[in-house]
Amino acid sequence: MSTQLVEANTPLFHLDECRRFIVDCMLAVGTPRPNAEALANILIEADYRGHYSHGMNRIEMYLSEAQNGICKVDASPEILKETPATAWVEGHGGLGVVVGTFGMDLAIEKAKAVGVGLVVCKGSNHYGIAGMYALQAMKKGLLGLSFTNTSPVVAPTRTKHAALGTNPLSLAAPGLNGDSFVLDMATSAVAMGKIEMKNRTNSAIPSQWLDPDTGALHPLGGDESNSSYKGYGLVVLVEILCGILSGGAYGPNIRVLGNFERMADLGHCFIAVDPKCFAPGFEERLSDLMESLRQMPPNDPDKPVLVAGDSERLHMKAVDEAGGIRYIQDQLDTCEKVAQDLNIRPLQPLAK
Amino acid sequence: MSTQLVEANTPLFHLDECRRFIVDCMLAVGTPRPNAEALANILIEADYRGHYSHGMNRIEMYLSEAQNGICKVDASPEILKETPATAWVEGHGGLGVVVGTFGMDLAIEKAKAVGVGLVVCKGSNHYGIAGMYALQAMKKGLLGLSFTNTSPVVAPTRTKHAALGTNPLSLAAPGLNGDSFVLDMATSAVAMGKIEMKNRTNSAIPSQWLDPDTGALHPLGGDESNSSYKGYGLVVLVEILCGILSGGAYGPNIRVLGNFERMADLGHCFIAVDPKCFAPGFEERLSDLMESLRQMPPNDPDKPVLVAGDSERLHMKAVDEAGGIRYIQDQLDTCEKVAQDLNIRPLQPLAK
Repeated sequence: MSTQLVEANTPLFHLDECRRFIVDCMLAVGTPRPNAEALANILIEADYRGHYSHGMNRIEMYLSEAQNGICKVDASPEILKETPATAWVEGHGGLGVVVGTFGMDLAIEKAKAVGVGLVVCKGSNHYGIAGMYALQAMKKGLLGLSFTNTSPVVAPTRTKHAALGTNPLSLAAPGLNGDSFVLDMATSAVAMGKIEMKNRTNSAIPSQWLDPDTGALHPLGGDESNSSYKGYGLVVLVEILCGILSGGAYGPNIRVLGNFERMADLGHCFIAVDPKCFAPGFEERLSDLMESLRQMPPNDPDKPVLVAGDSERLHMKAVDEAGGIRYIQDQLDTCEKVAQDLNIRPLQPLAK
Repeated sequence: MSTQLVEANTPLFHLDECRRFIVDCMLAVGTPRPNAEALANILIEADYRGHYSHGMNRIEMYLSEAQNGICKVDASPEILKETPATAWVEGHGGLGVVVGTFGMDLAIEKAKAVGVGLVVCKGSNHYGIAGMYALQAMKKGLLGLSFTNTSPVVAPTRTKHAALGTNPLSLAAPGLNGDSFVLDMATSAVAMGKIEMKNRTNSAIPSQWLDPDTGALHPLGGDESNSSYKGYGLVVLVEILCGILSGGAYGPNIRVLGNFERMADLGHCFIAVDPKCFAPGFEERLSDLMESLRQMPPNDPDKPVLVAGDSERLHMKAVDEAGGIRYIQDQLDTCEKVAQDLNIRPLQPLAK
């Protein structure tokens, strides 16, 4: 995923205006306002954190799925089975963010009651950045873990054919004074967004990223000599927690990317853990570990050692200092076209 | 970890005899019999599965730690805090296998009651292969997850200095008819054992594995251009679930490898999940996914696509067919010396 501020020669947009635009788009295709707002929040959070591939970039995909009826924008999730610590949820084809937020809310409630909550959802759609749900738990003082399966674009080790998704995982955990550890990663060598960026800029794609014949992504590691079977194992681990446990679509059964002819039926897994059930002082220890890592001598003085979440913090700081966000012209053209098609107010730049 | 059957020109040893030898060794240094048997079981299970680095290879380490009193071979773990779904356990410096088995037993009991059990332990020692505990849950029809921290030998991305362990993670999940998915991996590019094997055979160590200046291992991925920050993130994820959550030693605070002057105070995390709390048919779906992966067209006809656990199954089959296991001569010399030092019956080969 991208963690660079887009430094295009384009206008600045206030984050509130970006959210307004997405809400208006989704209202225009029949989305109830709370669901439209939830989607706007997660897409603009992705852009704010520097994960442009998972933000405004996806607006046409969400609109197409809503218009096709492939995504039920007014569906509400339902609990199918429940214990004090677990729940199995049917998403009824609703927006991924609606299903995901519901699922993690349940996990949080259970973790508050018995220390850990594990919720598995099926019948869902693309849920945006995995980190959003992990952060949802972290904001309540918990550890949050979030997993989802995706359309098959990753080739298992030893074959060049895609059979599994980029299956991301995320862990967010609170440190002291607002510091935090936020890992949000595809278990493939890279996320699809990085490939798109290389293509957009006509840059060469490293051979460790994908198979040149089929375009299938490699798992984390790249090839077998570099332990790609571990990345492949992690891709399947996420699939087991999502598609296999939930009874939704899984692996090669998930519809291919860009196919809007059938429901995605994606699966997610959410785990919330209350650190108060274990050793006192969790936040102090985590901050101590993160500080000791950040202070290690870097190989290149211009590239300090980071912990997961630091790149995003740097990007958010840059957006805050600029007073808004920039998109590349191609994205702005898309927004313009969408506004015309839906007859809504175009995205308004900040006054200079 | 090694998954090759050792094809040395050495005698065969029955697995029972290997276990007998380890039990006698540990009894000779004051270990209660049940604890000695638990250690023998896990070490020989490692060898049986082809993870030679974590088996008989470690006998001297366990003996030294027992003789120094750094590992309390007669200690019993204690529950410090508990909910219906979680427990925090003090290992009192006992054998890792004793603490780990206790921890996963508790997680299993809780998963049977409320669908998920999450147990975190501190005050422990090296617990052998992470997969053993995941398998412990799987044998009860559950999904098992197992994590541990280790002595710092891995360099975070952007520095060449070690600060974190190889922090393995394991997931075991049951399929149909005894089939299973068993991922058991260090989150570093490779486990320490692979480095030792390259050294033993005077082979070149790939540059993606470790830093040539310091010898610190790289995280999974290798270098930053190949997404090593994801491997680094996973190493820290495991550390958060183990050292940070448990209040034991963590990261750079853990004693360096081979230092027997202070307690290891390692942390482990165990999660058991009952698939019956979610969609019916878990085992059918997992077997279907595994079969579809195994049947994919391989790039090299001699190297079929595998799923995690297949290498170990092939190794166990080879051991079963041979009627026993072989060790390299260096290992047999060690066993001979240990038998003399402790005045116990030497390891007896099978009659030819």
